[in-house]
Amino acid sequence: MCQLLGMNCNVPTDIVFSFTGFATRGGRTDTHNDGWGIAFFEGAGVRHFVDYQSAIESPIADLIKRCPIKSKNVIAHIRKATQGRVVLENCHPFVRELWGRYWVFAHNGDLKEFAPVLNGAFRCVGNTDSELAFCYILQELRRRFGDTPPELPALAATLRELTGEIAKHGTFNMMLSDGTALFAHCSTNLHYIVRQYPFAQAKLSDEDMMVDFSEVTTPNDRVAVIVTQPLTDNETWTQFAPGELKVFVEGAPTAL
Amino acid sequence: MCQLLGMNCNVPTDIVFSFTGFATRGGRTDTHNDGWGIAFFEGAGVRHFVDYQSAIESPIADLIKRCPIKSKNVIAHIRKATQGRVVLENCHPFVRELWGRYWVFAHNGDLKEFAPVLNGAFRCVGNTDSELAFCYILQELRRRFGDTPPELPALAATLRELTGEIAKHGTFNMMLSDGTALFAHCSTNLHYIVRQYPFAQAKLSDEDMMVDFSEVTTPNDRVAVIVTQPLTDNETWTQFAPGELKVFVEGAPTAL
Repeated sequence: MCQLLGMNCNVPTDIVFSFTGFATRGGRTDTHNDGWGIAFFEGAGVRHFVDYQSAIESPIADLIKRCPIKSKNVIAHIRKATQGRVVLENCHPFVRELWGRYWVFAHNGDLKEFAPVLNGAFRCVGNTDSELAFCYILQELRRRFGDTPPELPALAATLRELTGEIAKHGTFNMMLSDGTALFAHCSTNLHYIVRQYPFAQAKLSDEDMMVDFSEVTTPNDRVAVIVTQPLTDNETWTQFAPGELKVFVEGAPTAL
Repeated sequence: MCQLLGMNCNVPTDIVFSFTGFATRGGRTDTHNDGWGIAFFEGAGVRHFVDYQSAIESPIADLIKRCPIKSKNVIAHIRKATQGRVVLENCHPFVRELWGRYWVFAHNGDLKEFAPVLNGAFRCVGNTDSELAFCYILQELRRRFGDTPPELPALAATLRELTGEIAKHGTFNMMLSDGTALFAHCSTNLHYIVRQYPFAQAKLSDEDMMVDFSEVTTPNDRVAVIVTQPLTDNETWTQFAPGELKVFVEGAPTAL
């Protein structure tokens, strides 16, 4: 199993605070040692970092903690290998292009007897069930909507159907983003929080680190953080229901 | 215009020495300030770093100089924008998946009246002539060979035809790799060197830096470095002929 961290905001925001707590689970407060990765949308572009070193040992993870990258959509992952060897091509998140946008995907869980037929439009480079699920989702989006991306409600409805179908094969907590919205599906474990005005202090549960968000935000900022296990111990996180897909836009869950 | 650097080796090798000289041109010894990028194959996976900061100011470029990443195929690029804004999605190299492999591409030059029809299999995220050429190349490979990647001779012949066709539209110095071979096409400026036993000293022309490769190699190592302008001033670089496509495999140009 693995852990997932996502962030969706209405203004580009750095993820240093959350990532610091999260990365600690990659070998110190938890045993997710088999690589990690993070992808940041910046405009239409993506900064993508993956490593098969543990997140607490990786110099790239250290750089991300020291050099804040501001983004409206971020997905991060720390891996404890269940399927697929500990090699770079099996590290999440995965990135592919569809409809002239990059799509970023990460998965927590384990799928059994999941063997969709891929038509070749999106093929796996590595050998994880996760990358296979991602390729299948993109293939189905392309097959159903052709060359024209749908509006968000139709996209959300289709993703709800596809993630439900995949989740029948096992645990499928996942995050997906095209840079405009962040889609999060829960099988077993996913929590979120929306931080907005009036901002308060937050204290990491994995590290002795505290931040007063009122000092680093403006009253208009809004940030949703989504994670497998809550990162702070003095805030109220909302747990997803099993089978739920939430769509985060501009820092908040939408009613789609 | 921009500058390109590629490396193809028979054993995973770090590119710190060459990249150090190359990155210096990104703002110090030359004026390629509009971003930079580098992609390293590691097994089937790719580490991909792009930045719109200049290479001499970028903390990620600094990390790459400090933390050697070993790879058999590397492509790097420093950008001086001619088409497309200075944003992340326009930074080379670009990465896409075809046939279950990642492909990495970077371009030096400028294409005029180049408007191939894309069928949607590979679409541009940014707005450079370079990414358009990359998408067109992958689309044509997929269209001609279907779901089965060809053997290297057929692939090289097709790439020779496609790059020749694209080069009619302007300057098209480019590098492309699928992690097994590195393809380099020259319109105007491309040079290469093969370093192998007996290894000697090399001295960068852009930095006061020297390396004795005999101290950091084994007698079986072989490394080809390909670059728009030679990086060292005490070695003999071979210039490509205009219109030439060379295929580098296991650290040497092949006769394909």
